[in-house]
Amino acid sequence: MATETPAGELVDRLLAGNRRAAGQVISRIEDESPDVESIMRGIFPHTGNAYVVGITGPPGAGKSTVVDELIRVIRASGKRIGVVAVDPNSPFSGGAILGDRIRMMRHSSDTGVFIRSMGARGHLGGLALAARNTILVLDAMGFEVVLVETVGVGQSELEIAGTADTVALVVAPGMGDGVQAIKAGIMEIADIFVVNKADHPQANKTVADIRDLLRMEIAPRAWTPPIVKTVAIRNEGLEDLWIRTRQHRQYLERSGELENRRKLRLEAEILEIADRRLREQVLEPSTETEEFQQLLDRVVHRETDPYAVADRIVPRPGLGGV
Amino acid sequence: MATETPAGELVDRLLAGNRRAAGQVISRIEDESPDVESIMRGIFPHTGNAYVVGITGPPGAGKSTVVDELIRVIRASGKRIGVVAVDPNSPFSGGAILGDRIRMMRHSSDTGVFIRSMGARGHLGGLALAARNTILVLDAMGFEVVLVETVGVGQSELEIAGTADTVALVVAPGMGDGVQAIKAGIMEIADIFVVNKADHPQANKTVADIRDLLRMEIAPRAWTPPIVKTVAIRNEGLEDLWIRTRQHRQYLERSGELENRRKLRLEAEILEIADRRLREQVLEPSTETEEFQQLLDRVVHRETDPYAVADRIVPRPGLGGV
Repeated sequence: MATETPAGELVDRLLAGNRRAAGQVISRIEDESPDVESIMRGIFPHTGNAYVVGITGPPGAGKSTVVDELIRVIRASGKRIGVVAVDPNSPFSGGAILGDRIRMMRHSSDTGVFIRSMGARGHLGGLALAARNTILVLDAMGFEVVLVETVGVGQSELEIAGTADTVALVVAPGMGDGVQAIKAGIMEIADIFVVNKADHPQANKTVADIRDLLRMEIAPRAWTPPIVKTVAIRNEGLEDLWIRTRQHRQYLERSGELENRRKLRLEAEILEIADRRLREQVLEPSTETEEFQQLLDRVVHRETDPYAVADRIVPRPGLGGV
Repeated sequence: MATETPAGELVDRLLAGNRRAAGQVISRIEDESPDVESIMRGIFPHTGNAYVVGITGPPGAGKSTVVDELIRVIRASGKRIGVVAVDPNSPFSGGAILGDRIRMMRHSSDTGVFIRSMGARGHLGGLALAARNTILVLDAMGFEVVLVETVGVGQSELEIAGTADTVALVVAPGMGDGVQAIKAGIMEIADIFVVNKADHPQANKTVADIRDLLRMEIAPRAWTPPIVKTVAIRNEGLEDLWIRTRQHRQYLERSGELENRRKLRLEAEILEIADRRLREQVLEPSTETEEFQQLLDRVVHRETDPYAVADRIVPRPGLGGV
């Protein structure tokens, strides 16, 4: 194995805009390398400037093309843009998943664009955390906009999309369960609806369906999500999508909702780090005691149950708190 | 809303074999109803008897047909069988996802078969836990075999498949990335490989590819995974798959590996319950203090970082342990 570059050096290079260093840092994040914490501590003070846009939706809606064309529109406005394409169903990372090979080639000479694909790499857990840290890396590198594209509307995808400031949900007409799929709990995360393939005869029907679903929502929304029609393969409607995204950003900023959302996300991040520590420092060591192993044997033989043993590790009155 | 049946009563009915009670219990598990813990405590003493088989693999490999035909073979051997079909990308639950409508109709008059579909229901997290608890429900009802089918090879799917005693990984020839997809970390969880659609001209190539991949593995295996060829739509090879599954079970039992695996899973389950309690009793209350809110503000303004604040909640030397 090659000698590893020290974390501090990588961070310095990355902050200076070195793309190779960024790639190496993201690989370490994905590999859950032991120096991730020190890397992220070095990066964190330089974050908070990028505007993060999530693009999600069921497979087949044309998200990839929407993202491609949105890159073009955002670049035309002069902004530098980082893209994280996340596919929890792909075991591949770093290279080309989705339609990324073409996308990467198209933008390969443009230093104002940085594209990274992330898959699950076959190991469990950690993809959402890796995606969040990668967004911070691109933020620290000075990209003014970070697009996060997720494939599908599964749990990991929604979790990742939920870390964006603005979430665009892309659907297409005539997909059968296109609008059905957004009914059940996915609606709520959308700030903007995109009806792609809007030249399809059923497009207006899809728009009307979304409007109906929005009308039926019980929880009131301070921001009424616009419905944008696009034909991404013909470059139509993307300017409109970008205008709507900026309008949503203005709304978030003026209402104080942007700071509010970001604060809540940072709170969740702190709790997750603390939770990881509790697991490593309290829970995992607790399994090594003789007492625990005896209790575990009793669980195996159904003489007690997992909840009763958990009660012994974390007594009901709590550990005393902070 | 209708009056809710008390948890204890539902558990009694379920243990007596009442399918409607089982359906209601599983719905409460999916809804994360507050009485899930008391339900699971009632069920747990009656579990540990079912043999759990996971069926996983990339979309398009024909898993659903393999499961259908495997149900037939297992029923022919006289065993009662419960099936949990999990699709993290589906927002639907309880009803028909995948090809389940047909499957459910086919077996609707057979009280020796119980089939339940689970989707993500649009909310984040909890699907793997819900699937594990549902397996316990079917186990407690006296089903001798529980099949767990997962769609795709994403994180949640692998996590769920990993709770089975025997995991069969279904691939099909000519899928392009079929064997590619199993390269990266998914191989390891397979106890049996199933090459479905084995009448395809590329089938032997796929078998050879899997054999090569197995040969290249670094971690030694005590059990060499057999490669079973099936043509599920023509009912071919399923008896062989069931024989191999039973052989794997015998191997696990004789080697002590079955008890070992199940013990490790119970340990993980206890830690997860304890972790949930720590979050509710230690972490979440800690955010309500004045001190935490001031620290959070400093994180928002990049004067400190999330790791430093986590250090304050969980000091490095630990909370003292058990």
